[in-house]
Amino acid sequence: MNRIGLLGIEKLVEIERPFGNVVLLPTIDVTLDIPQNEIETEDYARLLENVNIAIDDVMTQKITSIENFCASILRRIVSCGDIKRAEVKLEAEYAVYRKTPVSSLDTQEMYNILARAILDKGEIKKMVGAEVLGITACPCAQEGLLEYTKEVLENRVGKSDAHELLKELPIATHNQRNASRLLIEVPEKYDIEVEELIKILEGVMSSRLYEVLKREDEVDVVLNAHQNPNFVEDVVRKILVEVSQKYVHLPPESTVFVKSESFESIHQHNAVAIRISTLRELRDEVSAESL
Amino acid sequence: MNRIGLLGIEKLVEIERPFGNVVLLPTIDVTLDIPQNEIETEDYARLLENVNIAIDDVMTQKITSIENFCASILRRIVSCGDIKRAEVKLEAEYAVYRKTPVSSLDTQEMYNILARAILDKGEIKKMVGAEVLGITACPCAQEGLLEYTKEVLENRVGKSDAHELLKELPIATHNQRNASRLLIEVPEKYDIEVEELIKILEGVMSSRLYEVLKREDEVDVVLNAHQNPNFVEDVVRKILVEVSQKYVHLPPESTVFVKSESFESIHQHNAVAIRISTLRELRDEVSAESL
Amino acid sequence: MNRIGLLGIEKLVEIERPFGNVVLLPTIDVTLDIPQNEIETEDYARLLENVNIAIDDVMTQKITSIENFCASILRRIVSCGDIKRAEVKLEAEYAVYRKTPVSSLDTQEMYNILARAILDKGEIKKMVGAEVLGITACPCAQEGLLEYTKEVLENRVGKSDAHELLKELPIATHNQRNASRLLIEVPEKYDIEVEELIKILEGVMSSRLYEVLKREDEVDVVLNAHQNPNFVEDVVRKILVEVSQKYVHLPPESTVFVKSESFESIHQHNAVAIRISTLRELRDEVSAESL
Amino acid sequence: MNRIGLLGIEKLVEIERPFGNVVLLPTIDVTLDIPQNEIETEDYARLLENVNIAIDDVMTQKITSIENFCASILRRIVSCGDIKRAEVKLEAEYAVYRKTPVSSLDTQEMYNILARAILDKGEIKKMVGAEVLGITACPCAQEGLLEYTKEVLENRVGKSDAHELLKELPIATHNQRNASRLLIEVPEKYDIEVEELIKILEGVMSSRLYEVLKREDEVDVVLNAHQNPNFVEDVVRKILVEVSQKYVHLPPESTVFVKSESFESIHQHNAVAIRISTLRELRDEVSAESL
Repeated sequence: MNRIGLLGIEKLVEIERPFGNVVLLPTIDVTLDIPQNEIETEDYARLLENVNIAIDDVMTQKITSIENFCASILRRIVSCGDIKRAEVKLEAEYAVYRKTPVSSLDTQEMYNILARAILDKGEIKKMVGAEVLGITACPCAQEGLLEYTKEVLENRVGKSDAHELLKELPIATHNQRNASRLLIEVPEKYDIEVEELIKILEGVMSSRLYEVLKREDEVDVVLNAHQNPNFVEDVVRKILVEVSQKYVHLPPESTVFVKSESFESIHQHNAVAIRISTLRELRDEVSAESL
Repeated sequence: MNRIGLLGIEKLVEIERPFGNVVLLPTIDVTLDIPQNEIETEDYARLLENVNIAIDDVMTQKITSIENFCASILRRIVSCGDIKRAEVKLEAEYAVYRKTPVSSLDTQEMYNILARAILDKGEIKKMVGAEVLGITACPCAQEGLLEYTKEVLENRVGKSDAHELLKELPIATHNQRNASRLLIEVPEKYDIEVEELIKILEGVMSSRLYEVLKREDEVDVVLNAHQNPNFVEDVVRKILVEVSQKYVHLPPESTVFVKSESFESIHQHNAVAIRISTLRELRDEVSAESL
Repeated sequence: MNRIGLLGIEKLVEIERPFGNVVLLPTIDVTLDIPQNEIETEDYARLLENVNIAIDDVMTQKITSIENFCASILRRIVSCGDIKRAEVKLEAEYAVYRKTPVSSLDTQEMYNILARAILDKGEIKKMVGAEVLGITACPCAQEGLLEYTKEVLENRVGKSDAHELLKELPIATHNQRNASRLLIEVPEKYDIEVEELIKILEGVMSSRLYEVLKREDEVDVVLNAHQNPNFVEDVVRKILVEVSQKYVHLPPESTVFVKSESFESIHQHNAVAIRISTLRELRDEVSAESL
Repeated sequence: MNRIGLLGIEKLVEIERPFGNVVLLPTIDVTLDIPQNEIETEDYARLLENVNIAIDDVMTQKITSIENFCASILRRIVSCGDIKRAEVKLEAEYAVYRKTPVSSLDTQEMYNILARAILDKGEIKKMVGAEVLGITACPCAQEGLLEYTKEVLENRVGKSDAHELLKELPIATHNQRNASRLLIEVPEKYDIEVEELIKILEGVMSSRLYEVLKREDEVDVVLNAHQNPNFVEDVVRKILVEVSQKYVHLPPESTVFVKSESFESIHQHNAVAIRISTLRELRDEVSAESL
């Protein structure tokens, strides 16, 4: 593999969405696979010069989604020369409006959205994705504290009341910020709404985050997180179940990439889980489990 | 103020400590205040060339502490020219050996240690400090969950048992990684052990972190953190109380800088508290409170 | 000084400018100075809760500039309690359209724009600024290579032709990316266009950067940079001369902050120059020099 | 692929080298591939707990190289359970002593060294590498400035003298910091000296960097860089030629990874070249070219 490219190109682009225009400030990376030992330094320079011209060119046209923007840049670049493989990668912040869970205040939340377009063996593959921050509450420490709590309760109020109380009481555990990321391959003509991916990611965390929380919201978020503990691997698995159920119309060979990283509150290091599968594999697993 | 300098100089240095030599890989920043419009570009270049030569020179000598290393570099630099104010700043990772709280496993923990030497009006001031990662458990959300827990308990087992149980049960709350930093000014001839500063910082957190934790340790850390909730401002205040009680022999005009930043698990943004005082102010406050 | 705050709040905001609306994705830091030992943890929590509500509130109103946005947030926050000092700080990427120097291609360039609003002793101060990446070519190494080039020329073509050639030939030197930053204090009622600050910063660099450059542009940029060598301290001084000449209508006590940092191509570390002055000082210096 | 792991573990380790002990502060990432849907959350927790215990355990033993340290951790981890694939990755700063090129001053330079150990299908693969900062001077802009310089010279001193002068004069161009990285796969029993890799990387850059440079050194470095212009792709190609000639005793199926990234002084974005090959491919190419 012999690859050259430009990393960290920043642009302001306007995406025309059905519900209105969205302004983004993406960072774009472009790489090209070139035959080795056959072209001159000057040609490399021209190839890379073309990358910038291609981006500026595509930006003057109508853009309907981040993945189509990537695909248009890719097509424009590969039209300039004999390139076997090329990739355009984009990451941007994306603001979504929410309501706080109890007080129903309006709040604007920020997510990362991701897209890729890859030319490989004459075909263009698109990927679309999102990265979301949320809370993970640790199930393992919670089990330990459940035992501790059970003992305290049984000693004072007996087994029966203790048993009932444990169903209702939030059990303490360590919890922390987590960043989870989902990328799905889509056929060239097809679009996935990034808002859907953001909803999947937020839905499986122990709790979503909010930029503003009144006291009553904060209690609700913490209760929620403790009723829904998740190890990073649990987050990944739940995302995959959602994806396999929601995207039934996508081709089975579509790749799904999921990563969940917790900034552990009890360690200086992070815990991570990563899964790369095809939709076919996910569908097989889910149906095997539901038997 | 007219300042030039070099940022991000990385060196491997060996510190000779009473208990054995310590190898550090500090990052060093050096800045010089120079009169404006009086010196030529060439002179600036020579001043900065001298900074690197000074560091290399001091590194060949015996180094007894990070703050003395900074002070030696400073003295060496200002001996080369008519410099009114100059500052040498250093930050390095520092490994300390600990035992896990319950299983007593050996564990090596990593901290940041900090030093500064400042020449101002003919005098050299030294500062020595540390930055430690720990857990903060939020007292505010915990109060909300205490009310919730109280209601659940009272409904099932009555006021009296509920009252007793609340004394023993860990009350859930959100908790997160926190970075807290303490820097103390010391007279030129005086040394502070960074290990002492690390202990102060770890002692006031909701709980310290460990790189390795067996299940029984993890439960202990989480219980501990929940019995000791801290808003960032609480961490800062507790550090200052410790400092004012421990460093009674330091001059009252010594500056103390404290900062605590929590990577909030319920928000995307961080909470921070900062306090800059003299030891005199801290001593006055502490004695006023203890009346 | 006893300060609490929130760091890293990210928002999407729309600024209504005379020439059209501008969408920004700023990162906002808010800090509040509070009396020590007089308020409860719960009050801190409420103070910080108010910060987020204040930002969301101001975002629903018309915003005319980044510094006025900061000032509105500040006013809204301090109206909630007895706060003696507070600061709102903002940084955002900002896209500007340019033409390449020779080929006149359209290119979109990205800059950082900065604003602050500070409440101190009952008064609000605003600061507005920009940070720009450019090239600095080192004058010191260039002088060395000038001597070398002179010798080579004199040996072959004699003193007279060598003398003439040295006026025309670009003399090689090391050059690198540089980040320069300018912040100016402005009275509450007054606005500075960030585009003006960007122009000042770009104008004094050895050369500005471009995201797209055809071959002929690249030669022009390199020639230009070599005819205009700058040590970081030169960049700072030239910015200050421009500021003192352009902003004659600003009050003399206005603070001007300038910083220039070069990512040295011959070292692993960076060179930096920083200057903090009032406009009065700058005007005095400039007039002294022009005598 | 279903992977869990710990990222960002920091340790202080002492490596026993033939020429003396070396202290490093590596950052370590460990990942394990686990069968999906077959193990419980508790088992994940225990697997990850074992990772930390394994590292602490290996640190009490004699360590002879960074890649053997990674391999020992790997062996210790996979001995605890039925793990099909696992990877230990390490990155550390490494100080090397040099002399400046003309003034022969002693200088300490800092590099990154890299190691990996991968268990795959029952076999352990080791990789060892380094990352070095250096200067790249752009050949493409230099060609443009050569034409310009030629015209200036010919106009004044005629074709013949111009022709001779162009052989001797340094031709200006943009130049910048570059980070280049090389990783080579080695059989389990074999060790590569990271110092050798650092020398290869430094040798192919337009010039190496120095933390201290007297005026005469600076001129030499700049001259050197301009006589040896390199596009990122040239740096990669030259590294590969060196590797294929030096490591003749390594098995032909060994993987070689090379990446070179220039922090372009004329753009805000970076240029990158990446190459992944086997030694067999490299040997074939080099012998084809030398025909």
